[in-house]
Amino acid sequence: MNIKQYLPIFEWLPKYNNTFFKGDLVAGLTVGVMLIPQGMAYAMLAGMPPIYGLYASIIPLILYAILGTSRQLAVGPVAMVSLLIAAGVGTIAETGSENFIELAILLALMVGVIQLLMGVFKLGFLVNFLSHPVIAGFTSAAALIIGFSQLKHLLGISIPRSNHIHKIIGNAFANLDAVNFQTLTIGLVAIVLILLVKKIKLPIPGPLLAVVFGILAVWGLGWHNQGVKIVGEVPSGLPSFGFPSFDFENVKLLLPIALTISFISFMESIAVAKAIQSKHKNYQIIPNQELIALGMANIGGSFFQAFPTTGGFSRTAVNDQTGAKTGMASIISAAMIALTLLFLTPLFYYLPNAILASVIMVAVFGLIDFKEAKHLWHTDRGDFAMMIVTFLGTLTLGIEEGILIGVILSLALIIFRTTQPHVAVLGKIPEKPHYKNIDRFDHLEVRKEILIFRFDARLYFANVNYFKEKIQEEIQTKGKDLKLVILDADSMNGMDSSGVHALEEVIESCHDAQIKFCLVGVKGPIRDILHRTKIIDELGEENFFFRIQHAVDFFDKKENNRYLEYAIQTNN
Amino acid sequence: MNIKQYLPIFEWLPKYNNTFFKGDLVAGLTVGVMLIPQGMAYAMLAGMPPIYGLYASIIPLILYAILGTSRQLAVGPVAMVSLLIAAGVGTIAETGSENFIELAILLALMVGVIQLLMGVFKLGFLVNFLSHPVIAGFTSAAALIIGFSQLKHLLGISIPRSNHIHKIIGNAFANLDAVNFQTLTIGLVAIVLILLVKKIKLPIPGPLLAVVFGILAVWGLGWHNQGVKIVGEVPSGLPSFGFPSFDFENVKLLLPIALTISFISFMESIAVAKAIQSKHKNYQIIPNQELIALGMANIGGSFFQAFPTTGGFSRTAVNDQTGAKTGMASIISAAMIALTLLFLTPLFYYLPNAILASVIMVAVFGLIDFKEAKHLWHTDRGDFAMMIVTFLGTLTLGIEEGILIGVILSLALIIFRTTQPHVAVLGKIPEKPHYKNIDRFDHLEVRKEILIFRFDARLYFANVNYFKEKIQEEIQTKGKDLKLVILDADSMNGMDSSGVHALEEVIESCHDAQIKFCLVGVKGPIRDILHRTKIIDELGEENFFFRIQHAVDFFDKKENNRYLEYAIQTNN
Repeated sequence: MNIKQYLPIFEWLPKYNNTFFKGDLVAGLTVGVMLIPQGMAYAMLAGMPPIYGLYASIIPLILYAILGTSRQLAVGPVAMVSLLIAAGVGTIAETGSENFIELAILLALMVGVIQLLMGVFKLGFLVNFLSHPVIAGFTSAAALIIGFSQLKHLLGISIPRSNHIHKIIGNAFANLDAVNFQTLTIGLVAIVLILLVKKIKLPIPGPLLAVVFGILAVWGLGWHNQGVKIVGEVPSGLPSFGFPSFDFENVKLLLPIALTISFISFMESIAVAKAIQSKHKNYQIIPNQELIALGMANIGGSFFQAFPTTGGFSRTAVNDQTGAKTGMASIISAAMIALTLLFLTPLFYYLPNAILASVIMVAVFGLIDFKEAKHLWHTDRGDFAMMIVTFLGTLTLGIEEGILIGVILSLALIIFRTTQPHVAVLGKIPEKPHYKNIDRFDHLEVRKEILIFRFDARLYFANVNYFKEKIQEEIQTKGKDLKLVILDADSMNGMDSSGVHALEEVIESCHDAQIKFCLVGVKGPIRDILHRTKIIDELGEENFFFRIQHAVDFFDKKENNRYLEYAIQTNN
Repeated sequence: MNIKQYLPIFEWLPKYNNTFFKGDLVAGLTVGVMLIPQGMAYAMLAGMPPIYGLYASIIPLILYAILGTSRQLAVGPVAMVSLLIAAGVGTIAETGSENFIELAILLALMVGVIQLLMGVFKLGFLVNFLSHPVIAGFTSAAALIIGFSQLKHLLGISIPRSNHIHKIIGNAFANLDAVNFQTLTIGLVAIVLILLVKKIKLPIPGPLLAVVFGILAVWGLGWHNQGVKIVGEVPSGLPSFGFPSFDFENVKLLLPIALTISFISFMESIAVAKAIQSKHKNYQIIPNQELIALGMANIGGSFFQAFPTTGGFSRTAVNDQTGAKTGMASIISAAMIALTLLFLTPLFYYLPNAILASVIMVAVFGLIDFKEAKHLWHTDRGDFAMMIVTFLGTLTLGIEEGILIGVILSLALIIFRTTQPHVAVLGKIPEKPHYKNIDRFDHLEVRKEILIFRFDARLYFANVNYFKEKIQEEIQTKGKDLKLVILDADSMNGMDSSGVHALEEVIESCHDAQIKFCLVGVKGPIRDILHRTKIIDELGEENFFFRIQHAVDFFDKKENNRYLEYAIQTNN
């Protein structure tokens, strides 16, 4: 029992000092400045009024600072989660409506509860099932969908919302004659501005510059009277406390999207938290505590009008680079957003939606992972296929469906691969007591009366038939000269009851054919199983060997140190 | 291209001789005699009039004899498939009605087409995913359900049909006051008779004796006037040719049960076929050809009023024991059933249903696999749990659900096990160049500057985090004395792109901490991957070794033969 375990803030707060504060202040202010345009943009992406992006950037940050194990993770609205909110809530309520806002806040509560429970029951390991290619394929597709979903704001036209990219593009083309060129101009200039600031590494966040430019342009040129859509009246003041409106029917409808967001957002968050931690190493990331912290951040946020949030890539990177040492940086960011809400909201009146769209588009197109696709193509075709299938599935079938297909396919591929594992027939390296795969080396010595067979997988129900077939095939190839079968069990990492049955059958069929059978290099966990199932007794201890050469020497009736104790030891 | 490949009958027909015929004649007649009561009983179990059991015992047998690769397999109605027919068709049509019969025959056509397609597309391997514990649990539960479903015939009461054992038992108790004691007496005597014949190994099939006894008893005592239900009028004559009545809506409704029957019946059949083949070895069982043969048997049967059939345990065993040498035995059995249908049906008028029920009950209670449960309890608790879960799932949730749960759970267990594989830290056997797990042997030598780590699984996305955590844990345990990490890759059977990333990360973090890293005993398929991903170049060929001792000697700057060519060979 240790308070630090439950409230990781006490890991650093008691040692807090001036050096920490200097770093945290600069980082906190910088991230705060980034959060203003990003928060508003991601709120718009989620289908919420922009102000809600700022509401979601206060309470969750503070709660994560208290409960989270990462000291640099910047929590708040992120593009992927916002897209999922829009996709999930958009099917139940009209985008931007009162009801939509209520549901998005309820969703935050649900995501929080799910993550909290996963953390409490230590289910964080479940994200391990999201393989890297699946994540890359999914992220790339989601980035495309997010980017294209902003097309309407950039072109100043109305396109019915859709998560299917072909529909978005089709609808955009159909409405091309309605393009508002003032809007498009502002958006394109903003994109160029953001990219330029990034390119020449100016010490100000590009999105903020774009926001200032957009406000000034509309205000100065009066383009809001020429069809440029602007944010308009933004209420000032902090988010108010209130219970999320709870309705059992809505909970049921939102459950699939809540589960998806819980997983995806935890995964994004833990990935970036671990990446940053590996550069510092003065603290540990504890995945299940992270789930609790993110869960509490969402639960707490939902009582203060926040939609679902998580730790995001870009702001965390900035937070770290600008010197954040502890969660204090996040608290400073939150304070800055609070001050903005109290005093600066009138400034956003003239902010054009096109600016927020350009912020989103630049952010997400960087997530399209061409490099990974190319890398996988050259190194692992199976994983490349997973990435492409997930990518196409997400684009064409939908966001949740895409990731589900990816996960199921990658598990199926793993299972399928173990059903037909690699096997090898071994031969002796001339003049050495070592044995290698005869398909890989030409000069190995193979004796016609001895078959040395290696099976590179755990022997379990789904591959026992393959095992029996392969070893029988080799036995038949050897023909009637065969006197000894050596099973090199060195790379057999497990054996279930079907595996034991299969091994017994093979041993029996060898004995029926007057062929000796022995086992070499059996690993500890399998030795335990073979003892328990009495196979060691049935086959006889004398037929277990430590090394292949020992078995061959024994067959040749040569003297040798058999290392018997190592060949048959058990922990049973 | 070889006619024998498509029509395996030509494997034996050209060589057919007198010796074969003698065995086939005795076996064919014996199995034919068994088929009369069993066929009628299993038809009753399926919810069909008993005569349909005989219809299903002609065409399928002949077609299998022509197309099947087993020479002893006895095809026909079997208990498990009949139960599935009753369960599946019973939800759509009233048991025993005209419509029910039509649907059961349509089901045979569907099962046949599914099996034929599986065979043509070589999907026979799919049955590998049904593990032995799952089959044992499922079979035991199905046996209980089948057995209890016959209670109503044995007690002479009416119990609403159900696949949930608690409902059957509950309903039986509720109707206990309506028991017909004449019926019960006949049934119990029949059960004793069958068991006795089995016990003292009389050379006549017990069920046939029971049938004769039942007919004589009812005929002699006139009990059919005292409430004993009898088979009654049995139409004589062979089954007539006709197209199964095809209706798209019904096909859709029957599809789940058709898929289940296709799998289960193929599995039962291939298991018994392989078991018998292993005693003969003068022919081969080809699983995909078996699917084609069983599929054609069902398709052909469906045109002659047959419900779904497959190769069964008990009759196949009898067929083999009584000397069957080729498929001719099955043709003889079929001929005998045909003769029975032409001339002997009037004899079955007085046959009591209770006799058929007793035949079923004795047959299936033998399938409850207590022995396997006990064996698994002692040898493999995971597999024991699978068996029990499948057993209970089948009993309480339903037949298809039970087997589905079993399959999904056993795959999940496999995946789960590989996410937290066995790992070991190795130490040196004193005065020998060999290394073993320090947790299993006390006297091993461990050097404080060297960590030798073994990971017993393929390194893939679902266990990369576990791999990184475990190796980091051991590195931290070693502390600042550590100078060399040796990864014994001997039992790593595969590596996907996530695994490659993880390995790179571990190597990098070692290098950051000024620790040398080397790889030992990398298997061929992984060497190929490490070449492709350039890890061999990055880490340097000099850090790849053939044996652990070579790496240690290299570290100690001792001379050694490094066998480099074996450590880094690739087939790329």
